[in-house]
Amino acid sequence: MKVQEITKLVSIMSLQEKIDQMLQIMGFFYMDDEGVLTGPMRDLGITQDDVDMAGSILGTFEAEKLIHIQKKYMEKQPHHIPMLFMADVIHGMKTIFPPPIAQGATFNLEMAEKCASVAAKEASISGLHVVFSPMVDLVHDARWGRVMESTGEDPYLNSCFAEAQVKGFQGDDMGKPYKVCACIKHFAAYGGAIAGRDYNTVELSDNTLRNLYLAPYEAGVKAGAGMVMTSFNTVNGVPATTNKWLMRDILRNEMGFDGVLISDFSAIKETIAHGYSKDETEAAKKAIEAGVDIDMMSNVYAANLVKLVEEGKVDEKLIDDAVLRILLLKNKLGLFENPYKDASVDEEKTLVLTEESRKLARQAASESFVLLKNDENILPLDLKKKIAFIGPYTDNKEMISSWAITGNAKDCVTIKEAAEKVFSSDRTVYVNGSPVLGNDVKLVGFGDGAPKEVPEEEQEKMMREAVSAAKEAEVVVMPIGEHYMQSGEATSRGFIDVPEVQMKLFREIAKVNENIVVVLFNGRPLDLREISQTAKAVLDVWMPGTEGGNAVVDVLTGKVNPQGKLPMSFPYSVGQVPISYNHYSTGRPAELSSDPRYCSKYIDMPNEPLYPFGYGKSYTEFEISQVRLSDTTLTDSKSIKAEVSVKNIGHTVGTETLQLYLQDCFASVVRPVKELKSFKKVTLQPGEEAVVSFDVDEEMLRFVNAEGKLVSEEGEFNLWIGNASNTKNKASFTYKM
Amino acid sequence: MKVQEITKLVSIMSLQEKIDQMLQIMGFFYMDDEGVLTGPMRDLGITQDDVDMAGSILGTFEAEKLIHIQKKYMEKQPHHIPMLFMADVIHGMKTIFPPPIAQGATFNLEMAEKCASVAAKEASISGLHVVFSPMVDLVHDARWGRVMESTGEDPYLNSCFAEAQVKGFQGDDMGKPYKVCACIKHFAAYGGAIAGRDYNTVELSDNTLRNLYLAPYEAGVKAGAGMVMTSFNTVNGVPATTNKWLMRDILRNEMGFDGVLISDFSAIKETIAHGYSKDETEAAKKAIEAGVDIDMMSNVYAANLVKLVEEGKVDEKLIDDAVLRILLLKNKLGLFENPYKDASVDEEKTLVLTEESRKLARQAASESFVLLKNDENILPLDLKKKIAFIGPYTDNKEMISSWAITGNAKDCVTIKEAAEKVFSSDRTVYVNGSPVLGNDVKLVGFGDGAPKEVPEEEQEKMMREAVSAAKEAEVVVMPIGEHYMQSGEATSRGFIDVPEVQMKLFREIAKVNENIVVVLFNGRPLDLREISQTAKAVLDVWMPGTEGGNAVVDVLTGKVNPQGKLPMSFPYSVGQVPISYNHYSTGRPAELSSDPRYCSKYIDMPNEPLYPFGYGKSYTEFEISQVRLSDTTLTDSKSIKAEVSVKNIGHTVGTETLQLYLQDCFASVVRPVKELKSFKKVTLQPGEEAVVSFDVDEEMLRFVNAEGKLVSEEGEFNLWIGNASNTKNKASFTYKM
Repeated sequence: MKVQEITKLVSIMSLQEKIDQMLQIMGFFYMDDEGVLTGPMRDLGITQDDVDMAGSILGTFEAEKLIHIQKKYMEKQPHHIPMLFMADVIHGMKTIFPPPIAQGATFNLEMAEKCASVAAKEASISGLHVVFSPMVDLVHDARWGRVMESTGEDPYLNSCFAEAQVKGFQGDDMGKPYKVCACIKHFAAYGGAIAGRDYNTVELSDNTLRNLYLAPYEAGVKAGAGMVMTSFNTVNGVPATTNKWLMRDILRNEMGFDGVLISDFSAIKETIAHGYSKDETEAAKKAIEAGVDIDMMSNVYAANLVKLVEEGKVDEKLIDDAVLRILLLKNKLGLFENPYKDASVDEEKTLVLTEESRKLARQAASESFVLLKNDENILPLDLKKKIAFIGPYTDNKEMISSWAITGNAKDCVTIKEAAEKVFSSDRTVYVNGSPVLGNDVKLVGFGDGAPKEVPEEEQEKMMREAVSAAKEAEVVVMPIGEHYMQSGEATSRGFIDVPEVQMKLFREIAKVNENIVVVLFNGRPLDLREISQTAKAVLDVWMPGTEGGNAVVDVLTGKVNPQGKLPMSFPYSVGQVPISYNHYSTGRPAELSSDPRYCSKYIDMPNEPLYPFGYGKSYTEFEISQVRLSDTTLTDSKSIKAEVSVKNIGHTVGTETLQLYLQDCFASVVRPVKELKSFKKVTLQPGEEAVVSFDVDEEMLRFVNAEGKLVSEEGEFNLWIGNASNTKNKASFTYKM
Repeated sequence: MKVQEITKLVSIMSLQEKIDQMLQIMGFFYMDDEGVLTGPMRDLGITQDDVDMAGSILGTFEAEKLIHIQKKYMEKQPHHIPMLFMADVIHGMKTIFPPPIAQGATFNLEMAEKCASVAAKEASISGLHVVFSPMVDLVHDARWGRVMESTGEDPYLNSCFAEAQVKGFQGDDMGKPYKVCACIKHFAAYGGAIAGRDYNTVELSDNTLRNLYLAPYEAGVKAGAGMVMTSFNTVNGVPATTNKWLMRDILRNEMGFDGVLISDFSAIKETIAHGYSKDETEAAKKAIEAGVDIDMMSNVYAANLVKLVEEGKVDEKLIDDAVLRILLLKNKLGLFENPYKDASVDEEKTLVLTEESRKLARQAASESFVLLKNDENILPLDLKKKIAFIGPYTDNKEMISSWAITGNAKDCVTIKEAAEKVFSSDRTVYVNGSPVLGNDVKLVGFGDGAPKEVPEEEQEKMMREAVSAAKEAEVVVMPIGEHYMQSGEATSRGFIDVPEVQMKLFREIAKVNENIVVVLFNGRPLDLREISQTAKAVLDVWMPGTEGGNAVVDVLTGKVNPQGKLPMSFPYSVGQVPISYNHYSTGRPAELSSDPRYCSKYIDMPNEPLYPFGYGKSYTEFEISQVRLSDTTLTDSKSIKAEVSVKNIGHTVGTETLQLYLQDCFASVVRPVKELKSFKKVTLQPGEEAVVSFDVDEEMLRFVNAEGKLVSEEGEFNLWIGNASNTKNKASFTYKM
């Protein structure tokens, strides 16, 4: 349809019809043929009419279901407005790719775009129009369970991935086949929850909010994301969802977002629990005034907006604007012409979870693995040796992660399944050794997802088998880590350890075999002090998804050389969080202090994380030259070229990620000690050398000053190029306007 | 002198003379007869003339020295302007009282005022004019070493103590005998250091800065404190020390502070390390423009201000204002008339560390002790039983704390010294059992303060003695805890545990004796999970100061019934910090959630601290009635009376602290879930009952709204009265203007 027609359509819709467009409910209301309202929703104060006319649903997928629902809906919809179907497609639809934190570790934007593109295709075939991705929240606290859904701690890296994923989901036109609308979330600063406790208050200065936290959202908006989702937290004392300053001034006016703004699940209503809205009426008024177009899964808009408009308390113009944005989105997706878009029961069988998509998942996973340690080059494994796989992730499909609700764990390839194809059956054994969690750990409220208890005697038997296998083996590979339900939404942890039952196993194995390779499963940075001290090698594989087992075996055997880089610092211990490499300088920096006491440090542990942002090893070694600058003065009209020579001085082909960091030495507000500004990957044969160069221009120097203006300021800058954020490979230049 | 004379004096001083008034250096430059400049200071670029004419010195005390320095100085000072003598008198001068965190636990403002008053007397006799106290920084993170210098996590409690201490130091006229000038520190929000690392960046929203953090500083200013000290951290991206908005707009204009603003130690210069000032010249310019009057221990003012004024880059008026404030302070102290004020070598011998001051120290200490646990009423001790004192604080004068530089550890009474006077020598033994720290712990940069290593075989012998003593005893009293150098400035800890060497001792003792009473020494909240589970009783005695041993014995024997209340939450573990009872509500509060999963919580530990703010037991028990309100509607003209009946239902006289908390249920910015607004102590004989009532008025409801205005808003309020912050004793009222 043409835009004028949409505008006209809004003008002839009744107030009730318009407000129903702003309601989003769960798909299960439509699961029977009649779409009869179930009890819980009635309790919310939503009528059967609201359900019948709701503008969108979430959380339902599969082509047959959605075609059915759309058909029924269109039969009743007086204006032939189709329904929008949305769902949480976080790291793949049916082909489950590694989660965002792992994709961040690839530093491979093209790869992330491809993964998003496959997810979009599979989602659209299953009938979906909108995916609640990408999450671009900055994360500095490993306690927060949702770090697994983020690409990490860096504003620039998150911005790059935001853009790549939006492009992957939407292509250049979300109306085209196999494309969906992306939804940037969660606006704003959701990742800053105090003490890492999900949904908690966020405390940020304006300076940090603007310079660190907002950038990735803006990148997603600028990449053309059709939707943005609000966050659960408060920003400067006001819940984000009803925060007019945040939504109107920043998101709409400053960032220029003109798409659809949706609340997070029940978030409008939850402003009452925040102590901000007295009741639902006030919540509805505040949310519409802040510019929230769709009320996800609360009755607040549906039950209150009609009355508020009729009583003159809310301007109907606000409703019209919201509905216009919603209908424009439906139109962008081509739904007025084809309400089913790409939904296809047939293609679900042929074009989903294909050989090709599995290949991509396998590649993405192996690229995301981060080799944290590899003493004596114990990796890649020598296949001639006797090898024991010992650990609860040896043959475990839960590696799909907790946040892949559209996928099926049964589609996953386990390590054992993959290894059996490659490792000699004579010389290789596979034992679990322990459950993922001991019986002491209770995951309350996790329903079927919660782990089953394993009787103690059974656990003792597992341990005996494991120790006996370890004694026989020359190398022990230990796939261990967090339970898959220990990361994701609502899984904040005060202890960021590998579960104790597995650490017990690890200690027992270490007593009888000193050649341990830990394959670490995790949705967040963990405290690895003990493991990293004892194991010869540690390979972080996150939650690697559908092709996890194959990817792990590819890397263990050296078929693929690991190249992942940490997108988030691994703290020394939980007592060090929140931590990030891009912190501000204090007035007493420990690393520059001549006084060993009165400087900014801990007296009982280092300031540095155990493994820093950007860090990751390879099976080969790279020699990186001193930084060379084309000039030591940068001007508005003349950029500088900064380069290094990189040489593969090892014996195997490998890929290195060169990272460019800048520091504004003195500015009108304190700037981070180091900021990632660019990165490049280079693949080199043994002995091969390449020059990797970066253009450094004025744009890279910009920041938001105390007046809220984006500026660059003249002065001295430090520049580093290296293969981790703690690189010392430094040069300096001056910027003159 | 009259104010006009001071103004006139400023007008005739040379620029150099004025700027020298703004310089503060360490007293050791004056230690020899000639006051010859030592090497380090020369390196700073300070001239002999600057030293000769510096307006104040810090860190030197004792009447003889200061009289000598003043005499020499006055002989050279062309305008007969006396020098100001300042020092860190934190919790006592020679009589060392319990540290501020412990004084906070007394909830006894009169006591704090008395302690400050004695400290002022002893300080003034030793020649001091200004004490760098009170520190009123709000603290929510137990990792920060300096929590021991604060009265805790609550803005109201800190405000009350700020006022009490300022009154204690200054009296109604700081010029009177035995009074000194108080210095409120550290402006602002120093306690909010990220991850508890000293001097680290602070991230706070404007809303929280204004509503939680600024209140105690303002209370100190309103109480008339003559000085304020800047903080080391940044506030919204600008170092506090050069933060014009903070110092001019907030401190001077909004709070009305007209006294002397001093930088913290070297803080002006450190804005260079922050990356905010390019060089010392810029640092000087920014600091004077922000309104800092005295440059503590950096050369920045002395070396740069003359030139800056002469070049027209700094208005001489700013210098004149600063010098006027400094001279007015000297005049308030009466120094123009008597430059020596109360300095007296004789009185140092007779009026310092007297029987009376020791009595006060003993009483303050015992009142500050918090009884965290007392199963089976194991306390007070039955003196007929065989008792073993086992632990490295049994006979240890380090209980003076690390932040009592004017005091002498040798003046302290240890637990053993005190106990020997009371406990039967037949039935009582005293053994250390272990050193305070194991040889694995290195305190780098602590010089002579760092603990000496104890050979392992010696430690094993100590352990054997201890276990053997524990086997013989009916009750084991274990004085254990942090090393005294593990708290205070620059002592951030990533692990908030009792040192492992002592925990090992604790575990061994627990194997042979189940009747353990832990007497806990600490400068911060510690992780007490293991101790609180195993010990029958836990008495927190902080670092109790000069009379520590006597006070501990008073409470152990029941001569004094404990009454302390925690001024800071004891977290469940370090993974829970920062934490405070007065947090904001989320949209998904766990305690109100019907969904056990999707609410704001940890999956592996409680949201609640192990011991909450305001908590503390007694040897007796108190029954508190339901809250009674005189009315359920509060108006501007009519306050409400809220009261409870309290009855001592135990067998011994005791003191209970009734705490009144309010919650503004809905407001234009999200308000804390609970806020302390008043408290009252009541002492009751066994069986005695009293009514404790509070006036609740409109003023208690005020907060700073989003526009920065102090307002109260109509609506519903919850009110609790109880004996800890987790009280459920609730009533509600409505406020109508």
